[in-house]
Amino acid sequence: MVVREIGVMSMALVCLLTDFGSSDGYVGVMKGVILSIAPEARFVDLTHGIAPQDVRSAAFQLLAAYRYFPKGTLFLSVVDPGVGSNRRILYTEAGGWHFLAPDNGLLSWVLEEEKPELVLAVSKALTSGESLSRTFHGRDVFAPLAGRFLKGEKPTSWGSKVDDWARLPFPSVKKTGRRWTGEILAVDHFGNLITNIRNKDLSPVAEKGRIEIRLGKKAGVIKGLASTYNSVPTGRLLAIAGSAGFVEISQRDGNAAKKTGLNVGDPFTLMPVIPAKAGIPFL
Amino acid sequence: MVVREIGVMSMALVCLLTDFGSSDGYVGVMKGVILSIAPEARFVDLTHGIAPQDVRSAAFQLLAAYRYFPKGTLFLSVVDPGVGSNRRILYTEAGGWHFLAPDNGLLSWVLEEEKPELVLAVSKALTSGESLSRTFHGRDVFAPLAGRFLKGEKPTSWGSKVDDWARLPFPSVKKTGRRWTGEILAVDHFGNLITNIRNKDLSPVAEKGRIEIRLGKKAGVIKGLASTYNSVPTGRLLAIAGSAGFVEISQRDGNAAKKTGLNVGDPFTLMPVIPAKAGIPFL
Amino acid sequence: MVVREIGVMSMALVCLLTDFGSSDGYVGVMKGVILSIAPEARFVDLTHGIAPQDVRSAAFQLLAAYRYFPKGTLFLSVVDPGVGSNRRILYTEAGGWHFLAPDNGLLSWVLEEEKPELVLAVSKALTSGESLSRTFHGRDVFAPLAGRFLKGEKPTSWGSKVDDWARLPFPSVKKTGRRWTGEILAVDHFGNLITNIRNKDLSPVAEKGRIEIRLGKKAGVIKGLASTYNSVPTGRLLAIAGSAGFVEISQRDGNAAKKTGLNVGDPFTLMPVIPAKAGIPFL
Repeated sequence: MVVREIGVMSMALVCLLTDFGSSDGYVGVMKGVILSIAPEARFVDLTHGIAPQDVRSAAFQLLAAYRYFPKGTLFLSVVDPGVGSNRRILYTEAGGWHFLAPDNGLLSWVLEEEKPELVLAVSKALTSGESLSRTFHGRDVFAPLAGRFLKGEKPTSWGSKVDDWARLPFPSVKKTGRRWTGEILAVDHFGNLITNIRNKDLSPVAEKGRIEIRLGKKAGVIKGLASTYNSVPTGRLLAIAGSAGFVEISQRDGNAAKKTGLNVGDPFTLMPVIPAKAGIPFL
Repeated sequence: MVVREIGVMSMALVCLLTDFGSSDGYVGVMKGVILSIAPEARFVDLTHGIAPQDVRSAAFQLLAAYRYFPKGTLFLSVVDPGVGSNRRILYTEAGGWHFLAPDNGLLSWVLEEEKPELVLAVSKALTSGESLSRTFHGRDVFAPLAGRFLKGEKPTSWGSKVDDWARLPFPSVKKTGRRWTGEILAVDHFGNLITNIRNKDLSPVAEKGRIEIRLGKKAGVIKGLASTYNSVPTGRLLAIAGSAGFVEISQRDGNAAKKTGLNVGDPFTLMPVIPAKAGIPFL
Repeated sequence: MVVREIGVMSMALVCLLTDFGSSDGYVGVMKGVILSIAPEARFVDLTHGIAPQDVRSAAFQLLAAYRYFPKGTLFLSVVDPGVGSNRRILYTEAGGWHFLAPDNGLLSWVLEEEKPELVLAVSKALTSGESLSRTFHGRDVFAPLAGRFLKGEKPTSWGSKVDDWARLPFPSVKKTGRRWTGEILAVDHFGNLITNIRNKDLSPVAEKGRIEIRLGKKAGVIKGLASTYNSVPTGRLLAIAGSAGFVEISQRDGNAAKKTGLNVGDPFTLMPVIPAKAGIPFL
């Protein structure tokens, strides 16, 4: 009996991702609406600190996180610059997880990673109407759908399958000879620069050698992929296999974003496995 | 059995609203105290980002949120500049919800909206004493009362009915001829300016026409109440029926507070349903 | 049955303390991992706003908070500048609570307060390995251990008892004649300056008299320990018995940190029970 109950509760897990911030009651109100429909709902906040309307950062946070949640989790992601317009709302099942989000590219990086079993566009009957606010579909559309999902309603009745969902191109790494041109994908709370270079691509060529790296106006050599932050002196920049699967540029005991002045979307170049050259300083 | 348990849990919902911020353990400690008394307690954070001691903003957040929570929810609101003084603590039942807060006006806008079934002042025996801290009644007074409430204790034994609770005057809209003078009630995370003009008052006169609006030193015409953010060009200001029931001034893909320089408490004027006039620019 | 279930759930309480901030999904992902192992887990966030790598502030927050949580709570504290290095991870039982943290001093102030029943260093087999990220042991090491703890695994099988855990010296109060030299231990969200002087040490000598206090370049007299913020005029500084057990310097309706310019680690002096002296102003 205990086990069964825990099973029931685990199925009612909602992971929330928004750009609503924490200074207003917006997220709390969404939870209130969900609990009004499905009192057994349980919540984990992924983050509500996405910059306003920054769909791309939301796509990255979801990509970095979803696989660590129990199968069955519903990811409710509301970064929705088109709220109130005729943008569609998607319900998706992929890899055993469930996703509800506006059709603006937010889900596209997860859907590149996990082949979806179902992608449907929720019908207008469920997403529009005179009684809904024009500005807060998180409360008036997304939360009620989440509540109904948790109550056991089958989303297949909500709309029709689609295959033309909005795709956000994942920024590609350009290789010219031995030079790689990458891009800063995200900057985290610690100032770590998360790049679009996958650990598994750089590791084979970088682990034994050195890397020449050009970050903004700064150029220099780093020792290769560091094994830990502590393996370089305090204040030194380093490249390390990041926890989201992408190479990160960090500063030992510091903030790499501040030190380099780089931000999301900025390009940088690196050349793996170079011999040490005179005149190129350690970063 | 499952259903009954879920019912029990739903009754133990506490919605928290404070000015405690998120950098200290103050809110967590309140939850620890409540869970020590009522292990079945479940929490939703409305916000802890109220500016220190800003009772008026707390009153607004509560007003905008309470109706979206399940009946039976206990709203525990601690914005309490008078902590440790002889200010009273109120327990209130209104509309099927429960409210616990200092008697400083925080509850007054909810109590204008929902006729209370019970308002009582908690007796000094429960709210003072040598063993209590002088500065953190959230932990030492409010959380224990919340825990006892969740355990099923009847608050009617906590004190006496009162009808002289602190009233915070809700700022009224002044109408002089066709000119309305309103006030910025709140500024949200996105920079939306939430006014004290109710959607239902402005909608009938504004939906078909244009509005001349004067925000600080800026004056201009907007098209009437916008149906969505996307219905005006990027960067343009708009007025829209807001999700809290009040008209909001927003900037398409921008931050209206930054663009206008307006803040909480600032006045503004508008004239609904004007014909287009030469020389008045679109905002 | 209901009671038993509540008991089970209460045992699965995890209180989280990190420097991960709220703009990334790091904390959410840790909860996802724990829920994947122990679906019945329940969370309270103490704070994730510790300044990056500020072990000392984390030690203070934990010290100020732990005793207000139900016995049996697991405190999972990850402020971990040595992540990926060969720093140890500690599991501790003290006073009926459980603690999991890197061995960097974070636990040492709690362990001065509560004699530990068990301190063990988790074995390398559980805290290192090729499959773990180099930078996010919160997700790859701490959360799995927390999940296994909640599932009922006995931590005694995780490693060996140690008594050489990292000690962070608690800053002592120096007394020279009647002059006490203290230190700012923490600054809270309201700008209150939490000192290292215990309420119980200062109260007996200060309650009846006046205190001469020197904060940075400011010197002045305050009236003794205030009974409430409201007992001094608006804008005036005051000393008050703080809720964490330490004397705090506050400003009535203001921010003492901003007013004095003092910050964590800054020294200050006071002389309790002085007669009023001409020429020394009230602060």
